[in-house]
Amino acid sequence: MVKPSIPKGTRDFLPDEVNKRKFLFQTIEDVFRRYGYLPIETAAMENLSTLTGKYGDEGEKLLFKILNNGDYLAKADEKALRDRDSSRLLPTISKRGLRYDLTVPFARYVVMHQNDLQFPFKRFQIQPVWRADRPQKGRYQEFYQCDVDVVGSESLMYEAELVKIYDDVFTALGVEVIIKVNHRRVLMGIARAFGQLEQFNTFAAIIDKLDKIGEDGVKKELGHMGFSDEDCTRLFQCLNCPDISSLLALVDTNEDLDRGVEELRTFYEFFDLLDCNNEVVLDLTLARGLGYYTGCIFEVKAKNVEMGSIGGGGRYSNLTESFGLSNMPGVGISFGAERIFDVMESLGLFKDLHGLYVKIIFLAFDKDSHQYAFRHVSKLRSEGYAADMYPEPAKFKKQMKYASAQGYRYVVIVGSNELSAGKFTLRNMLSGEQHMCDLEEIVEILASK
Amino acid sequence: MVKPSIPKGTRDFLPDEVNKRKFLFQTIEDVFRRYGYLPIETAAMENLSTLTGKYGDEGEKLLFKILNNGDYLAKADEKALRDRDSSRLLPTISKRGLRYDLTVPFARYVVMHQNDLQFPFKRFQIQPVWRADRPQKGRYQEFYQCDVDVVGSESLMYEAELVKIYDDVFTALGVEVIIKVNHRRVLMGIARAFGQLEQFNTFAAIIDKLDKIGEDGVKKELGHMGFSDEDCTRLFQCLNCPDISSLLALVDTNEDLDRGVEELRTFYEFFDLLDCNNEVVLDLTLARGLGYYTGCIFEVKAKNVEMGSIGGGGRYSNLTESFGLSNMPGVGISFGAERIFDVMESLGLFKDLHGLYVKIIFLAFDKDSHQYAFRHVSKLRSEGYAADMYPEPAKFKKQMKYASAQGYRYVVIVGSNELSAGKFTLRNMLSGEQHMCDLEEIVEILASK
Repeated sequence: MVKPSIPKGTRDFLPDEVNKRKFLFQTIEDVFRRYGYLPIETAAMENLSTLTGKYGDEGEKLLFKILNNGDYLAKADEKALRDRDSSRLLPTISKRGLRYDLTVPFARYVVMHQNDLQFPFKRFQIQPVWRADRPQKGRYQEFYQCDVDVVGSESLMYEAELVKIYDDVFTALGVEVIIKVNHRRVLMGIARAFGQLEQFNTFAAIIDKLDKIGEDGVKKELGHMGFSDEDCTRLFQCLNCPDISSLLALVDTNEDLDRGVEELRTFYEFFDLLDCNNEVVLDLTLARGLGYYTGCIFEVKAKNVEMGSIGGGGRYSNLTESFGLSNMPGVGISFGAERIFDVMESLGLFKDLHGLYVKIIFLAFDKDSHQYAFRHVSKLRSEGYAADMYPEPAKFKKQMKYASAQGYRYVVIVGSNELSAGKFTLRNMLSGEQHMCDLEEIVEILASK
Repeated sequence: MVKPSIPKGTRDFLPDEVNKRKFLFQTIEDVFRRYGYLPIETAAMENLSTLTGKYGDEGEKLLFKILNNGDYLAKADEKALRDRDSSRLLPTISKRGLRYDLTVPFARYVVMHQNDLQFPFKRFQIQPVWRADRPQKGRYQEFYQCDVDVVGSESLMYEAELVKIYDDVFTALGVEVIIKVNHRRVLMGIARAFGQLEQFNTFAAIIDKLDKIGEDGVKKELGHMGFSDEDCTRLFQCLNCPDISSLLALVDTNEDLDRGVEELRTFYEFFDLLDCNNEVVLDLTLARGLGYYTGCIFEVKAKNVEMGSIGGGGRYSNLTESFGLSNMPGVGISFGAERIFDVMESLGLFKDLHGLYVKIIFLAFDKDSHQYAFRHVSKLRSEGYAADMYPEPAKFKKQMKYASAQGYRYVVIVGSNELSAGKFTLRNMLSGEQHMCDLEEIVEILASK
């Protein structure tokens, strides 16, 4: 007998947590649908040929690989086996892995189903992904991603639409946020103005760390790249500009800056037609680590709570390049569902959700009244109401203890008196008040939300 | 460049399929909740120590195992490596597997969280499972299971409740079914009456094949067990009895039969208080292959369509035995979601579902009217209505082609005329009729279901 356990970094969810998570995902999904995004789903297992080479060396190490079935050593690379070479052996004993994100499966999906889809194709996908990251507080090996993307169009209307989706979702969830906007070409233009265009990815990765290592940390790392102290000071004057015109007053323009500024302006033409509840700010220090992005980029931070970004995204020039389909530009954002969950818990925003869908339980105290109760509970359920009952005519104290521990708001007590009168005793578990009533009164309670 | 592909036996789902599947799962979930069942979720990955030894030799072979991360050969069994012994090597290079069903994870969950749960604990779980079965039509390596169980009570009220859940779900889905009921102890009593109690599991497994191999096939296999021709004839007279009294007129009673009959009677006391829309019949040939079941057993068949069982379940005496927790009797049923999906497709029962949540798309033909349209679409969305628009003022034909291919029911056309009049041209895509209107008329359409 082994003491039961679950793998490190995985979780079981209790009913109350499942209900909260479902509420969160459903709220997000409802907004996505309102904007015309369509749901897709892919399998947890992907061919390793789909996954490898997509996530860099670090990501690659975090892929979960699935052992081939049956006598998996039968086709194993003999030399790799003899050399005890795990990496070289791998492709000969494992063909499949668990999906690491929703972007690569989406790219594969678009290529495979391009003839079944209309472009621009607007899709959302809310599914778990798996990463063999070292487990720690708030970081799991299995977690949900919520992605929404549109591919097959370069229109900046979608950038505005996606920012508004952030605004709508966080408004619906009751989470106050700041939505930060920037443009990769503007950043490139700044890098170019400082003669650092060729090292742009390094430059962007350093700027991206601003939140973690602070301005001094960033300046130090830029120093290693060749930025002088004076450059650093001037660079931060640029990055801290509140708007495009102040930036343009500080640096000479160039083709990247031109293009980025033009696109940002088009974005704002659409965006200015919208009313947002949350702050949407241009933040020239926003860089997004991923090399992947080529246009507008976004990031969301929760107000009133200490937490990394709870959403991010941006435009990419071609989703499907690595699968051989060119000309599939797109833009997408994702919601950090696990972090949003934690933010909502810490701000008490789930407080109006009840773990139980059922608010009433019937308790009976002898065989006849138990059957009487069962018949009526069944009738209520058939009519679409949620109701439950204790499975046997046990002692009053035992049944009440159960009803109270489960959190039922009302208890219906049925004994021989109620049975002979054709009535029920209704007890409000909060106030402790109780009185005899007929079924209609119970239906009224069940019908009210 | 590799041509993208997905592993054999896995599937991608197009938006229309996702919507149908969501409708199916949501209908099932709604009924579960109405009866007071609570949702739980577990991780896809379980420790192999949880999964092994639970599914028999055949099942064991179908478990997907996950390779340990990093240099997985570092701790590999040297001798097994030298011998190329896949089975003996396995535990030293893989600690985790993908869940094979929802029952074993549920048992583990109950043991691990017993102090957080109230008993009787009523849970449902709708999640995918993975099996390395040979892929074939209608059989996948990743598929959903929908299980509903109550543990911690022996009350036969729950058997009646679960039969009614079958009735409610299939009524809600529009699928006509026959729900078959039997009791394992009654079957044991019959086996005992024929002197075959000791070989009961073999006996039950043979009876279970009746649908597949027919009465003659069953008789032949029973012959190998020691049943004479005369026994076989008498046995089928028993098994074909339409009710308990006819059975009791044919066989001498014994303690298994007594116990089974008594429990069936208690079940019917509850069941007779219910009104079912579907046929619920006692079927003494129902055996359920799994050794696991100890009490009432159930199976559901769809009418009007050729298909194996689309649901089954029963009572077990102890869910958590293999994890060291005794005294956890329960009863549960499951829904064969993938098959139910196929039944509904073949009967055309999804016909009222629309792939698109959005029924209206705005098309505009110059920059100003595009912005005018975007502003109004955004306003509608903010007010909770679903609406979409084409991302740029492209040619009329191109936009109409997109709108038509996507299946939008209405198109709102916006050009300079509409813009200057502050109006919209509304086109019904089914009838082809169109007329100028104001936003209120569009809102009316969006507000109607």
